[in-house]
Amino acid sequence: MWRVFFTSAVVAVVVRSAMNWCDSGKCGHFGAGGFIIWDISGGQEDYSYQELLPVAIIGVIGGLLGALFNQLTLYITKWRRTYLHKKGKRVQIFEACLISLITSTVSFVLPLLRKCSPCPELETNSGIQCPHPPGTDGNFVNFYCSKDNEYNDLATIFFNSQDDAIRNLFSAKTFHEYSAQSLITFLVMFYSLAVVTFGTAVPAGQFVPGIMIGSTYGRLVGMSVVKFYKKLNVDEGTYALLGAASFLGGSMRMTVSLCVIMVEITNNLQLLPLIMLVLLISKAVGDFFNEGLYEEQARLKGIPLLDSRPKQVMRNMNAKDACKNQKVVCLPRVSRVVDIVSVLQSNKHNGFPIVERGQNGESLVIGLILRSHLLVLLQSKVDFQNTPFPCGPGILNRHNFSDFVKPASSKGKSIDDIHLTDEELGLYLDLAPFLNPSPYIVPEDMSLAKVYNLFRQLGLRHIFVVPRPSRVVGLITRKDLLLEEDGNTATTELQSTSVRAYLNGKTAGGSAHLERPLLDSLMIGGVNT
Amino acid sequence: MWRVFFTSAVVAVVVRSAMNWCDSGKCGHFGAGGFIIWDISGGQEDYSYQELLPVAIIGVIGGLLGALFNQLTLYITKWRRTYLHKKGKRVQIFEACLISLITSTVSFVLPLLRKCSPCPELETNSGIQCPHPPGTDGNFVNFYCSKDNEYNDLATIFFNSQDDAIRNLFSAKTFHEYSAQSLITFLVMFYSLAVVTFGTAVPAGQFVPGIMIGSTYGRLVGMSVVKFYKKLNVDEGTYALLGAASFLGGSMRMTVSLCVIMVEITNNLQLLPLIMLVLLISKAVGDFFNEGLYEEQARLKGIPLLDSRPKQVMRNMNAKDACKNQKVVCLPRVSRVVDIVSVLQSNKHNGFPIVERGQNGESLVIGLILRSHLLVLLQSKVDFQNTPFPCGPGILNRHNFSDFVKPASSKGKSIDDIHLTDEELGLYLDLAPFLNPSPYIVPEDMSLAKVYNLFRQLGLRHIFVVPRPSRVVGLITRKDLLLEEDGNTATTELQSTSVRAYLNGKTAGGSAHLERPLLDSLMIGGVNT
Repeated sequence: MWRVFFTSAVVAVVVRSAMNWCDSGKCGHFGAGGFIIWDISGGQEDYSYQELLPVAIIGVIGGLLGALFNQLTLYITKWRRTYLHKKGKRVQIFEACLISLITSTVSFVLPLLRKCSPCPELETNSGIQCPHPPGTDGNFVNFYCSKDNEYNDLATIFFNSQDDAIRNLFSAKTFHEYSAQSLITFLVMFYSLAVVTFGTAVPAGQFVPGIMIGSTYGRLVGMSVVKFYKKLNVDEGTYALLGAASFLGGSMRMTVSLCVIMVEITNNLQLLPLIMLVLLISKAVGDFFNEGLYEEQARLKGIPLLDSRPKQVMRNMNAKDACKNQKVVCLPRVSRVVDIVSVLQSNKHNGFPIVERGQNGESLVIGLILRSHLLVLLQSKVDFQNTPFPCGPGILNRHNFSDFVKPASSKGKSIDDIHLTDEELGLYLDLAPFLNPSPYIVPEDMSLAKVYNLFRQLGLRHIFVVPRPSRVVGLITRKDLLLEEDGNTATTELQSTSVRAYLNGKTAGGSAHLERPLLDSLMIGGVNT
Repeated sequence: MWRVFFTSAVVAVVVRSAMNWCDSGKCGHFGAGGFIIWDISGGQEDYSYQELLPVAIIGVIGGLLGALFNQLTLYITKWRRTYLHKKGKRVQIFEACLISLITSTVSFVLPLLRKCSPCPELETNSGIQCPHPPGTDGNFVNFYCSKDNEYNDLATIFFNSQDDAIRNLFSAKTFHEYSAQSLITFLVMFYSLAVVTFGTAVPAGQFVPGIMIGSTYGRLVGMSVVKFYKKLNVDEGTYALLGAASFLGGSMRMTVSLCVIMVEITNNLQLLPLIMLVLLISKAVGDFFNEGLYEEQARLKGIPLLDSRPKQVMRNMNAKDACKNQKVVCLPRVSRVVDIVSVLQSNKHNGFPIVERGQNGESLVIGLILRSHLLVLLQSKVDFQNTPFPCGPGILNRHNFSDFVKPASSKGKSIDDIHLTDEELGLYLDLAPFLNPSPYIVPEDMSLAKVYNLFRQLGLRHIFVVPRPSRVVGLITRKDLLLEEDGNTATTELQSTSVRAYLNGKTAGGSAHLERPLLDSLMIGGVNT
């Protein structure tokens, strides 16, 4: 957090100085803009409680349209995955090109069909010109209009960059700029295009299109508010902003973060309560129908996202119930390569407990090894040994951490990619240096709700379910973790023992195994556990 | 979060309507104000990179003064606890009265000693009058000045409510309102008073005094900036705001939240980068000397606050090391009352593992009982029984959850408060219904850094350190926790078994103990574990 914060501060200062330097216009388009993308100052500064009804209506519309958007994109994505994208990459490229062509055609042809309107009389100090001078970005676009003092309201939003279109929709003091007919046409076409475009093989965000859709119907509602509440000092642009918030709330279901974002990009703190309200209503309405856009898509992709709270039913289940249908596949500490390969081929588990016989013949669980790490070891082959317990200095540093890191842009290795000779299959592999020596454990009759919290809070991937312990070695309390000087001296002593044990290559057995295996520090983060 | 958010939205709307209703002035002082406490609009809207140096200087001053403040309050609080407050409550009341008297005298006498200054020429549309009309709150206080068009700059900040004083220090377009001499006098006196007042037996915040101190030296720096960078469009009030942020950052060491607060109370998003920078510098400088104000005070009070990250040394320690000097005191499931009493008297532990003999004679840890719960049981006496294993329907609902809740405003019961007859001491107590059946456990050789994360993320109070498990019953992965319809049916079945076992009063033994004891649902939250 601290680093992110520092970076933001530096970025802000640097951008500010660069913008100052560019103020004279020598940087072209780069000098324009700023942190406040859509400044709505100059518009409505206040609101009355009569406006709560139209604001609530915007919230409901946002919830409905947002939920519909999520549902439609879900269906289309499913269809794409099952039918379309299986036919190869050419189909994906063709699809993207086709949608791009449709979008361009619609953006150009629809405004052409629309008649131009005469320019309204604008306040001279508002900084808005109608039509705006050619070659500049601005409101009131003259799009093949016959007369000079006319503008095309559909082209003002359709045939424009999305940034400018939003600025035009948010603009204050531009009453009756858009006809209801144009806004509805735009809404229907843009909504359909956004649904179809989402999920094509093109990297594209959902934020700006969402603001576009929302601000369109927001402005529509704003127009009727201006018409019906003539006495109030309302502005259509304010309602466009609220509409944008409502659609994002209804689709993405974020509340607090969205609120902060909306305030940041528009620099208006006065409207915060209204934005809050609209977000709440749209989220509540949307939640009635389905889940948020990103949750739906993540679920479709098979990503195991856990909700923030365990399901009620988990309170009556225990840890053992969650792994009832499973057979645990263990590996001994020193395994034959052929055994490891057959274990990896026979199942799809991602982690295997490692079990060893203790001094008194009892079995002991000494850790967890990940499938991906086993695959790395099998592929590199440098750790294969002829006898189960070779003499000598023990483990040498034959690996770097980076060997075990999964590449971000691949699906990882598969056991089928690894080819071993018969001779290699007969060798042994000591897994001790590569395992996670202490994965989190829970007793088998722990409430599943508690296990759930453990997963969720620590971001775990695997957890061992073990029998109820037979004795308690000690109790740790919070105060034990506030190490004072005492703790420090105790540690230095311990550290040296641990290092000694490590250098011996093999520990004394019993409960004290290799205390700091190679990958241990990778695992402390919790993500890999 | 969702509920907090909803509440805020409702509050905002209600306050807004109430303020509208009060606009006519019929509510007295209640109609004034709003969400933006100190509106600094009308001041500096922009900044140049030359201002980064004075801003950095403000950050350094804030860090130094904040760290000094923390250190001084720490010493004084220590002295209070060891000497002053042991002498009884009268001393505390006398101390508070004395400090209040000193504060009043200083606030009144110091401005009297200061000469009045002639009113400057103010822009007519700035809304500021000099001196402000008697009977109203405002800037430029005429405090026993001989002439009508004079004001006393020290009284403007000293002899005023702190809210108004801050508004006056933040005020824009009031160049040279304060003399450096007055500001320095105020800073020294107010700083000393704040140090002495913090920790008296009076509930008082640290936020507004912090803003006062910071805005004083901020305005001082601002005055020299105005003097040296004459070409720049800077405002002294802006620097007062930055000074306030710097002192809070240097003392409380919050960054992100403080940033949001400063923007919220001043409604200026343009200055956010500067506020960020000043907070970063002051926090960094302060961290060099000591910890934040609240952390220092919490440590002094013995509250075991855990840092967000484990100490580096913990990576080389394991769970067993953290409880080396401890002797674990266990209780059997059915204990004699006299044994429980003697255990409670002989140590100060807050939790005790409960151990039972299984069917095959091996011992099994069946849960954890808290000292406070044992005390409740001993005091109520209704659960005492004549024989270790009575026949009959088992546990009746003789307790409510509320019996076990610790009152918020007391230190809890002590074993010395409980008086039992000899006859009662000879009875038995079955602890099974009252224990936490599955506290979190860690194997004894788990890295202490991992244990630390467990405590910190789950908010635990106790954890059991157990021997390394001998076998793995199962592995739970994230996907196992995404219950589908399958999971639901499996549960209903389980639930009935568990209920049956519960009604039998005693379970079959082995690993399946009482699965839902009375207090279990209290414990799932994690805080009580």
